[in-house]
Amino acid sequence: MIIVLKPGATEKQVHHVLEKVKEFGFQTDVNRGAERTVIGIKGKIDQVARLRLQPIEGFPGVEKIVTVSAPYKLVSRQYKSQDTVIDVEGVEIGGKNVVIMAGPCSVESREMVLEIAKKVKHAGAKILRGGAFKPRTSPYSFQGLGEEGLQYLKEAREKTGLPVITELMDIRQLPLLEKYADIIQIGARNMQNFDLLKEVGRSKKPVLLKRGMGSTIEELLMSAEYIVSEGNSRVILCERGIRTFENATRFTLDINAIPVIKQLSHLPIVADPSHSTGQRSLVAAIAKAALAAGADGLMIEVHPNPEIAKSDGPQSLLPNMFSDLMEGLKKVSHAVGRDL
Amino acid sequence: MIIVLKPGATEKQVHHVLEKVKEFGFQTDVNRGAERTVIGIKGKIDQVARLRLQPIEGFPGVEKIVTVSAPYKLVSRQYKSQDTVIDVEGVEIGGKNVVIMAGPCSVESREMVLEIAKKVKHAGAKILRGGAFKPRTSPYSFQGLGEEGLQYLKEAREKTGLPVITELMDIRQLPLLEKYADIIQIGARNMQNFDLLKEVGRSKKPVLLKRGMGSTIEELLMSAEYIVSEGNSRVILCERGIRTFENATRFTLDINAIPVIKQLSHLPIVADPSHSTGQRSLVAAIAKAALAAGADGLMIEVHPNPEIAKSDGPQSLLPNMFSDLMEGLKKVSHAVGRDL
Amino acid sequence: MIIVLKPGATEKQVHHVLEKVKEFGFQTDVNRGAERTVIGIKGKIDQVARLRLQPIEGFPGVEKIVTVSAPYKLVSRQYKSQDTVIDVEGVEIGGKNVVIMAGPCSVESREMVLEIAKKVKHAGAKILRGGAFKPRTSPYSFQGLGEEGLQYLKEAREKTGLPVITELMDIRQLPLLEKYADIIQIGARNMQNFDLLKEVGRSKKPVLLKRGMGSTIEELLMSAEYIVSEGNSRVILCERGIRTFENATRFTLDINAIPVIKQLSHLPIVADPSHSTGQRSLVAAIAKAALAAGADGLMIEVHPNPEIAKSDGPQSLLPNMFSDLMEGLKKVSHAVGRDL
Amino acid sequence: MIIVLKPGATEKQVHHVLEKVKEFGFQTDVNRGAERTVIGIKGKIDQVARLRLQPIEGFPGVEKIVTVSAPYKLVSRQYKSQDTVIDVEGVEIGGKNVVIMAGPCSVESREMVLEIAKKVKHAGAKILRGGAFKPRTSPYSFQGLGEEGLQYLKEAREKTGLPVITELMDIRQLPLLEKYADIIQIGARNMQNFDLLKEVGRSKKPVLLKRGMGSTIEELLMSAEYIVSEGNSRVILCERGIRTFENATRFTLDINAIPVIKQLSHLPIVADPSHSTGQRSLVAAIAKAALAAGADGLMIEVHPNPEIAKSDGPQSLLPNMFSDLMEGLKKVSHAVGRDL
Repeated sequence: MIIVLKPGATEKQVHHVLEKVKEFGFQTDVNRGAERTVIGIKGKIDQVARLRLQPIEGFPGVEKIVTVSAPYKLVSRQYKSQDTVIDVEGVEIGGKNVVIMAGPCSVESREMVLEIAKKVKHAGAKILRGGAFKPRTSPYSFQGLGEEGLQYLKEAREKTGLPVITELMDIRQLPLLEKYADIIQIGARNMQNFDLLKEVGRSKKPVLLKRGMGSTIEELLMSAEYIVSEGNSRVILCERGIRTFENATRFTLDINAIPVIKQLSHLPIVADPSHSTGQRSLVAAIAKAALAAGADGLMIEVHPNPEIAKSDGPQSLLPNMFSDLMEGLKKVSHAVGRDL
Repeated sequence: MIIVLKPGATEKQVHHVLEKVKEFGFQTDVNRGAERTVIGIKGKIDQVARLRLQPIEGFPGVEKIVTVSAPYKLVSRQYKSQDTVIDVEGVEIGGKNVVIMAGPCSVESREMVLEIAKKVKHAGAKILRGGAFKPRTSPYSFQGLGEEGLQYLKEAREKTGLPVITELMDIRQLPLLEKYADIIQIGARNMQNFDLLKEVGRSKKPVLLKRGMGSTIEELLMSAEYIVSEGNSRVILCERGIRTFENATRFTLDINAIPVIKQLSHLPIVADPSHSTGQRSLVAAIAKAALAAGADGLMIEVHPNPEIAKSDGPQSLLPNMFSDLMEGLKKVSHAVGRDL
Repeated sequence: MIIVLKPGATEKQVHHVLEKVKEFGFQTDVNRGAERTVIGIKGKIDQVARLRLQPIEGFPGVEKIVTVSAPYKLVSRQYKSQDTVIDVEGVEIGGKNVVIMAGPCSVESREMVLEIAKKVKHAGAKILRGGAFKPRTSPYSFQGLGEEGLQYLKEAREKTGLPVITELMDIRQLPLLEKYADIIQIGARNMQNFDLLKEVGRSKKPVLLKRGMGSTIEELLMSAEYIVSEGNSRVILCERGIRTFENATRFTLDINAIPVIKQLSHLPIVADPSHSTGQRSLVAAIAKAALAAGADGLMIEVHPNPEIAKSDGPQSLLPNMFSDLMEGLKKVSHAVGRDL
Repeated sequence: MIIVLKPGATEKQVHHVLEKVKEFGFQTDVNRGAERTVIGIKGKIDQVARLRLQPIEGFPGVEKIVTVSAPYKLVSRQYKSQDTVIDVEGVEIGGKNVVIMAGPCSVESREMVLEIAKKVKHAGAKILRGGAFKPRTSPYSFQGLGEEGLQYLKEAREKTGLPVITELMDIRQLPLLEKYADIIQIGARNMQNFDLLKEVGRSKKPVLLKRGMGSTIEELLMSAEYIVSEGNSRVILCERGIRTFENATRFTLDINAIPVIKQLSHLPIVADPSHSTGQRSLVAAIAKAALAAGADGLMIEVHPNPEIAKSDGPQSLLPNMFSDLMEGLKKVSHAVGRDL
């Protein structure tokens, strides 16, 4: 941690900063340059220490504080150099095999979810996705079937053997989700719902954490740190597109985030080409790109009849499009030394 | 609502769309141009209708659906042309007077909150702000004093008469907040925590809803619609800065949003110059700009000793800076025909 | 083209709009809905027509104008459904083979460019890149060797047979560039330097047009339209990263743009993983992702000794890293049905 | 300047960095922390020095280089603490009076420009704006009247006494612009057209430099540095809106930029509420906000009949709206201690 003073900082201001730092229990190393003074903080600066020192940024004479270590710890590659591999009922996420999670945006009926589950399994998907509680921008939109939807998912799991991932929106529904889901999904809009993160951090279920559309990579890792620091280390990260000025697509998939996260963290990272494009005709290209960039898996929306989908119809693949895509994904996986 | 077909759409595809629209119960008006066909949907298209028609965007031959009405209703200026004025224990928000809400970022101690409360009241603030539950990016940061903090706020209210605004993060704390707060704040990170919105929509307390850092104006209004559609029409909107590529400041205050929201909605809109800049030295200029643009009020962080602030020290004003600023704000208010 | 009127538009306002549209020579189709009136413009609406109608957006009673056709024409997929393949001295860009353009960011010396040219050719690159005129944010940065640099590039071409791409910044240097370059590059910062676009539109040389860091896909296509409408149809588009709030990388490669542009235009599109990441360690992952998404080629920076590079050292690959990457790119190309 | 090494940097890597830095002629100060080593560069680090050290960012073992001084010099507040006041034919920009520049987006005819010139002068504008060469996204749009337009502007100046500002797009037109214009405008799309910047840097005319829609504040100041470093110190900066994800308005005025630039630079800064909103009904609110935030002036589009404007009709004010706005702007100016 380095404290950079303003060019015109007075001797008194420098002294004041030095005193406070010592008062907080740290040693300093002062470097008086021709133009400005820089104060280095010695000793091991952990998260807690950093936060105690933060207010110094507001001291008179201080220009900025430069932090040289990342603010997250348990999720960092430094803390654990080996890739974390998460076992979900026998399916390994983060290992050599890339894992495809597929299914409808929302569970709309028993028949529909059973039909899709069979089809995506046949095509090679390893996890069934489907929403029972749906975060919708409009209060007038279909909000999901609730527990009824969870029961259909459970039935689909029994019939196909596919583990199930579904979204948790409300902290009060956690016991219900723990009963039905194999992976608990935290949606982009709840990425910084910190109380929810703490609760799933105390759960025994693996958690898939989606990046917020206005959140940085560092914030995503900090939210993962919330979960892991409560004891649940089985966190899967998900890049699902960020908000940018480009409006030809619904969001902009931050493809750079995939290799960046692989460098910074040991946690698995998957991508969601359906939400990050918003258009069926773009899903295949972006799905392949994400695997080529090193993603450990994908979440893809499939619907038997997107024309009547109750949510996200325009981006859902038809089952036969999904099967074709899986062939292409196998080839790309092999090209980058992975299996599918 | 208008359905625009692709240039090469076949007669069969047009027919298919027309049939579906009729099946959903709507009348159509077909306009076959030289280049492409456009289908107008006749009749009153309310929110529910729009949502039923949405999947058509995924139909073969369809290029896009153009919605000509806003997706929100109860919060719209069309629904209610007169400005909504919200009475909070005698303080009117949205009326002729602009309302300044001031106080510490977080409640750190009894003495501190009592001291600031007196000082901001003396300077002309009408509402006391202060966080007891704090949404922090890092799990290792100070998370707020909890109920203890609420009690100090209550005491400060009793001593100064200032109504209190404080943030609700966890749905389970709503009863507690209702007991202590005069206005419930929903933070930027929870703007699309829809279950939380529904719950405060059933509360009797006024709600201040902050815009998410990655959320559009339309999404902010849709989130307000969640609250109002549950029965609570006392919603105050708050522009607090959005995420952009500019990193000289922590966020970019979307000043355009203030007059835009005034046109689209009847709800009051306030601005937060502290969070949207992140720097003490910028707060005064942005506070004045927001009032000049038509904001109904401001939220400003004040701290007696920002050097030891447990959160957001660098952007907090000292009490004397706040008093000076209030003088400037009075002048700007008068210049735009308001009082302070 | 559709004119959407405001809900409260008066009969007089509607009449006024209708009259103007007729005055401009167009026929109309009025659709009076329960909530609002929508006016469709009949007949073939070409670019010129659209622009004449544009001011109507400012008429009293008008809410917005919805354009249903793209504003570009010659570069659109509708105008020419087949992919454009550009022959550059025997190297085809936009065909079955993906084309790798590689070389130093800037030409720094004769020896250096000759050495890199040999090495990238040996590794499989088909075009040599290198800047002689450099757009630098700082006036104090190395600005390129100018004509001397062009001569070294020419010598490298003679020795290796690799066609050369280099950047044009100043309209007055076009004759010089035409003498030395096989492809003229227009940099991101000049994407909307319209006079420069018109001049290269009159050149006989192929043009590589980079997307501006703050420009939309539609604007990129409009800038290409400037070149093509002047007579030069040999335009290669290049996605090189856009500005977003994410600051873990220098720019955010808009991977979605690749399949989007493939749908909208017949022109070839290449990607620049070096500038869009700004970090050597991310280049390989993003290069592979771009090819998997359908890019027709890549521009990659290679430097024999990035430690002493006069520009963009941190993102340049060492020659042996580039050779390794080429092996990986071959595999990904085959996986998506292309050759390299 | 500080070089931060990676946690696992080897002694050999540290040594290698130290050697290179010394080779470049700088002294170092090594701070070996518990977690990582930080190397401070001693002595006066000017722009040239910084650039020579930059490649070190790519050295093995190096994590990042932290620059503690700004990369611009002549335009910085540090270099010159007093505000620069620019005299344009007797009109002072950057002094106590705020200066309103008004006129049509483009010069469309002699009559039109004479009429507007008289009206905006009467309302209190001090500079006449109008484009003769227009940067248009589409090659099919009206491109301006060229020299004919400049002659009309000259005539308007003679008749009203208002100095004229008009845009330079093409480096070859500089002699023409110098003949007719009192202030040369560099548009947002040419903010990083560095050859153009150098040329106007050698001109005797004041330059108004607009911020690019995808450019940071630092880049704007670097582009100003290009002009000033060539000898022309009469540069006026202009905030005209940046690209963000919000699409309710054409651009997002970065209101924070106004006080930020006032802190960083001694150059005057004006705002353009017309382009940054794109909507007539928002111009007044944003114009007032910009003055309240400390802008030294405004550029506002006025058109006698926006319905037939050849460019930017929807955002142009009618002359009477402009007169009304001037009354409001006077009040806001006084409220912040300025005159108009």
